Amino acid sequence: MVPHLITALGGPLNELEQRMLDSMPAIERWFRLEWMEHTPPFYCAAALRNAGFKLAPVGTDLYPQNWHHLSDDMLPLAVQAAMAAIEKICPEARNLLLLAQSRIDAGGGSTAYLDNLLQLRRIFHMAGLNVRIGSIDPRVQETATVALSGGQTLELTPVIRSQQRLGVKDFDPCTILLNNDLPAGVPGIVEELYEQYLLPPLHASASVRRNSRHLHSYEEVAKRFGKMLGIDHWLIHPFFAACPALDAHQAQAREELAAQADALLAKVRRKYKEYGIKERPFVVIKSDGAAGNFGALALRDARELSAAAWPGAAGGVQDFLLQEGVPTHERLHEAAAEPVVYMMDRYVVGGFYRLHAAQHNIGNAGEGLAASASASYVPLAFAHSTQLPQPGAAAGASAPNRFYMYGVVARVALVAASYELEATDPDAEVYD
Amino acid sequence: MVPHLITALGGPLNELEQRMLDSMPAIERWFRLEWMEHTPPFYCAAALRNAGFKLAPVGTDLYPQNWHHLSDDMLPLAVQAAMAAIEKICPEARNLLLLAQSRIDAGGGSTAYLDNLLQLRRIFHMAGLNVRIGSIDPRVQETATVALSGGQTLELTPVIRSQQRLGVKDFDPCTILLNNDLPAGVPGIVEELYEQYLLPPLHASASVRRNSRHLHSYEEVAKRFGKMLGIDHWLIHPFFAACPALDAHQAQAREELAAQADALLAKVRRKYKEYGIKERPFVVIKSDGAAGNFGALALRDARELSAAAWPGAAGGVQDFLLQEGVPTHERLHEAAAEPVVYMMDRYVVGGFYRLHAAQHNIGNAGEGLAASASASYVPLAFAHSTQLPQPGAAAGASAPNRFYMYGVVARVALVAASYELEATDPDAEVYD
Repeated sequence: MVPHLITALGGPLNELEQRMLDSMPAIERWFRLEWMEHTPPFYCAAALRNAGFKLAPVGTDLYPQNWHHLSDDMLPLAVQAAMAAIEKICPEARNLLLLAQSRIDAGGGSTAYLDNLLQLRRIFHMAGLNVRIGSIDPRVQETATVALSGGQTLELTPVIRSQQRLGVKDFDPCTILLNNDLPAGVPGIVEELYEQYLLPPLHASASVRRNSRHLHSYEEVAKRFGKMLGIDHWLIHPFFAACPALDAHQAQAREELAAQADALLAKVRRKYKEYGIKERPFVVIKSDGAAGNFGALALRDARELSAAAWPGAAGGVQDFLLQEGVPTHERLHEAAAEPVVYMMDRYVVGGFYRLHAAQHNIGNAGEGLAASASASYVPLAFAHSTQLPQPGAAAGASAPNRFYMYGVVARVALVAASYELEATDPDAEVYD
Repeated sequence: MVPHLITALGGPLNELEQRMLDSMPAIERWFRLEWMEHTPPFYCAAALRNAGFKLAPVGTDLYPQNWHHLSDDMLPLAVQAAMAAIEKICPEARNLLLLAQSRIDAGGGSTAYLDNLLQLRRIFHMAGLNVRIGSIDPRVQETATVALSGGQTLELTPVIRSQQRLGVKDFDPCTILLNNDLPAGVPGIVEELYEQYLLPPLHASASVRRNSRHLHSYEEVAKRFGKMLGIDHWLIHPFFAACPALDAHQAQAREELAAQADALLAKVRRKYKEYGIKERPFVVIKSDGAAGNFGALALRDARELSAAAWPGAAGGVQDFLLQEGVPTHERLHEAAAEPVVYMMDRYVVGGFYRLHAAQHNIGNAGEGLAASASASYVPLAFAHSTQLPQPGAAAGASAPNRFYMYGVVARVALVAASYELEATDPDAEVYD
């Protein structure tokens, strides 16, 4: 079942869709050539926004959760992609340790997270690995068997660190897959593991990663992709500006942010004019780090900034990010619908729509993939065969073709994440 | 829909199935290590026989047809596997020439073959290649547009050979994929193409390939696989004996064949006794080459040989093959059902049951995948998620688990085909 979406099916996005369908061989070749030079992140989920006139990623999660929301149809694709990934990283692998996020409370709101772990364990078991689920939560002192809603059980085991290796009791993994973005910082227990593959690398974790660094890479990649495709890369790219080291409690800092927001709004306004877009543009201001303590704030006018009640803005110097707001024009049952595309290795393996029941179309840009209480999920059966691109169908008329476009933009974000991780790798060799 | 099959669900095969499920990580790792050292054939279809007490491949086709019989659910898996294959062979690829079998007659019985070509074109187009379908049939003098039953059309184009390259008008491929096993011998037009990838290699074609060479490789691989799994490799391997250079019209040659058949029957009888199998064993005698002119003949007693009417046995010296007959114990609507497993690169991407309405359970062993007028096809939705292995289910009780076993044995045959092609490569470098 493909969700029936009230999508703005006219205008430039149809042109973009048509261009992508016509250029499928060129696009796939472009990705192949990128992957000759760069290594894709092990797994990734890209949240997209379809504004009707542009389509852009608003969050690229390198520790994706919610795998259980993918439809059953997609599982074989995920398994096959996992086999390909394992084969490249460590063909000799027997054992995989899946490192869960901390603070799992089976009695509370995290049963969804347990279902996610079960799905990941299933995928990697099918791909031919022995899988254990480990926790670095200090409250997990012994192996706990957790019963899941579906009648299945999950074992959560405390990790054991030796001088050189991380494992759990009687289980020595060759690869450790983090499903924990370590928001409180990188704990020593996962550092300096030189004998095992730790994926994603620690410099992708929340306390280290910067949104602006990703967007910088994304801009570079989107420009090259746009040139290959013969399109304005703005159609898939949100403008942004990094505003590092400001104290939101200082008037001068607020003025600097307001000036930057004003400049960004002017840039967006020019683009809207160029494309004949009648809407009023907005920008979003938020913390540059995923672990920031500042909620997202949408502005249509920079002057709102000085008067605004800054949600959760603590004092002290922090890094801010200004980003062009991309409105959400997709609707399902009157809720705003954001497509989220799941990838493993270089492959699109599935996706779903995240619905925000009470959300305005300007809100929460760049909120990324953090679960929100009001969000619900509808599987997007990307993988179903009738949803492979249909070369004959008119642009905008075919959900599968629209999904192909989503998969392409998500993979552009995947390439960007690969650039980003190379650029921020503390162990990278520098050739000067 | 999984076809309901009346399969003998008791006895040793259940043990084999259970062993394979329990050893899934070891099995997948074994395949990963094999593929580190060996290159899988580009694509392959393995026909299997489930005798209830053993499961063995009876034909490994390196130019598989009938892709259109795979269920739609499997198509995304085939596309993903094709992407992986292309990426390894020629990431820079833009153009693929699919070389069709000769003697396509759209008005006759080959509309099924045209549907097969359409499906292959679809898979490789989705994987990101420009695809043309070429013919080396001298009767194809200009591009013909053929209408298919589903309302789609297919263009069949005569190939053009330059000094160094093969292509079609205005289309220069980097890879040429043969879907034609060249039964009449390798024509000069496809020889000495050093600038393009020609897949599968010409030494895999029908006039060159020998069943006995494949079975020899299969025996070697099955032994190693059986050792890893801790099973008697006979459970997945049919005994065989090559009988080269005999003239079936000569009494002495027939006596030699009879003696070999007698020895083979004795070997099989000992195995039957060891496993308490009550049936009467049989052997099959046939041409060793796929292009042989001698139909398969099943014997329960070597003495039948001298009296038998040798179907289609022409005079002159030829190579024969004796093979242990594997009875078919799977039934669907009272027809004998043989699972056929389709692979691309190293991945199982689908399969179907080939049904023989009027077939005895001893007939046609090793007939391979040649279409027969009485054969019909039922898709085996290997790829459907609910048909991934179900770790909890009892052996024999779960169709998905049975299909996992089929996929494993088919991949053992795939590894064997890889060994075979390495051993028979005329351009291989020999290190002494």
